[in-house]
Amino acid sequence: MDAAIPSPPTDSPLFSRIRLAVPSNVPHIHKLIHQMAVYERLSDVCSTTESDLSANLFTSPPFQSVTIFILEVSPKPFPEDSPHNSNPNYIPLVRILNSDRPVDDPDREIFKSEDENVVVAGFSLFFPNFPAYTGKPGLYVESIFVRKCYRKKGFGKMLLSAVAKQAVKMDYCEVLWVVLNWNGNAIRFYEDMGAQILPERRIYRLTGDALQLHQNDD
Amino acid sequence: MDAAIPSPPTDSPLFSRIRLAVPSNVPHIHKLIHQMAVYERLSDVCSTTESDLSANLFTSPPFQSVTIFILEVSPKPFPEDSPHNSNPNYIPLVRILNSDRPVDDPDREIFKSEDENVVVAGFSLFFPNFPAYTGKPGLYVESIFVRKCYRKKGFGKMLLSAVAKQAVKMDYCEVLWVVLNWNGNAIRFYEDMGAQILPERRIYRLTGDALQLHQNDD
Repeated sequence: MDAAIPSPPTDSPLFSRIRLAVPSNVPHIHKLIHQMAVYERLSDVCSTTESDLSANLFTSPPFQSVTIFILEVSPKPFPEDSPHNSNPNYIPLVRILNSDRPVDDPDREIFKSEDENVVVAGFSLFFPNFPAYTGKPGLYVESIFVRKCYRKKGFGKMLLSAVAKQAVKMDYCEVLWVVLNWNGNAIRFYEDMGAQILPERRIYRLTGDALQLHQNDD
Repeated sequence: MDAAIPSPPTDSPLFSRIRLAVPSNVPHIHKLIHQMAVYERLSDVCSTTESDLSANLFTSPPFQSVTIFILEVSPKPFPEDSPHNSNPNYIPLVRILNSDRPVDDPDREIFKSEDENVVVAGFSLFFPNFPAYTGKPGLYVESIFVRKCYRKKGFGKMLLSAVAKQAVKMDYCEVLWVVLNWNGNAIRFYEDMGAQILPERRIYRLTGDALQLHQNDD
């Protein structure tokens, strides 16, 4: 039996960039959130709409309230004259990954960016928190997501590191986030980054009718 | 042996008020945070100073970022011409509790307020969050604390209800908070309020040297 002869490795650089989201990214952010809900087995509670996002994001300067980093990839270098490079609030992070073959992205058309060849591959959403015991702000990462075909390439770490780097830059005291306890891959990844679990903490939520009942509290 | 004859019940109304904190409350907030750390067995990690609080609180309008509600109590009605009553951002909540005897407050001098007879009894600290699956803001309650001699009178519920009421008023989607899993009293109290635990969620934190390491990430 003849062994299949693999095609020789090709030089397929993958340029990646983390930058601040802009309002025109709302359709992509919306799709990423719904893909994340599928991955987290929480589709049944995901009700986010594009109009909710448009109404509630970008209402204050970056890092002061809800902030989104967009991860983009491209087979070619990002243009140096990109408007994202002159954003006074954040200088994009760029990294080059050398893989042996191009990524097969079935959703390339859905996630194509404004720049030629550039595709949105993931995002992180975070906002300031305020741990009372430190008396200083931190950053609370609500979401980190990388689309399936771009996983296991270090992009999740790149997104979380970008938030951590920003926290250090602003002299913030911590970066905090929540993980689902069945997600062993995520847990290993976080612990490799030096993060520590707060094992005694449990999260409670008041929402829906139980929240509305408090409307008339006095 | 003669049985001790209890003194007859006296009419001891306890007036309570929840209002927005103001910068002059920082010394009381600082002491409340340190008392809370003792209660939560986390004194060893509590490093908050008054100057941290002064530098990092009151930097943006209430409810847009970190916000603190102060719980005060008084044996007499709160003055109607109190400047807190004309705060355009929040109308204080007032409630009257009829107890059979005055509260014996050993820290009365430390926690006395600007108004005569008024004592600071607790606080809550919260800030906006943004659950991606709703696409709408919520409120994340970082701290709720009532001083020991004022517990079991419904003040914890009053503080949390005040946050919930504000969330409803702003059309926010949820109120979220963290509880220590050994604190059965708190858990029963939250469940009585209609809150639900998110049992799969665990909290990770990156802080200290492990955070600083990300300073040079690119």
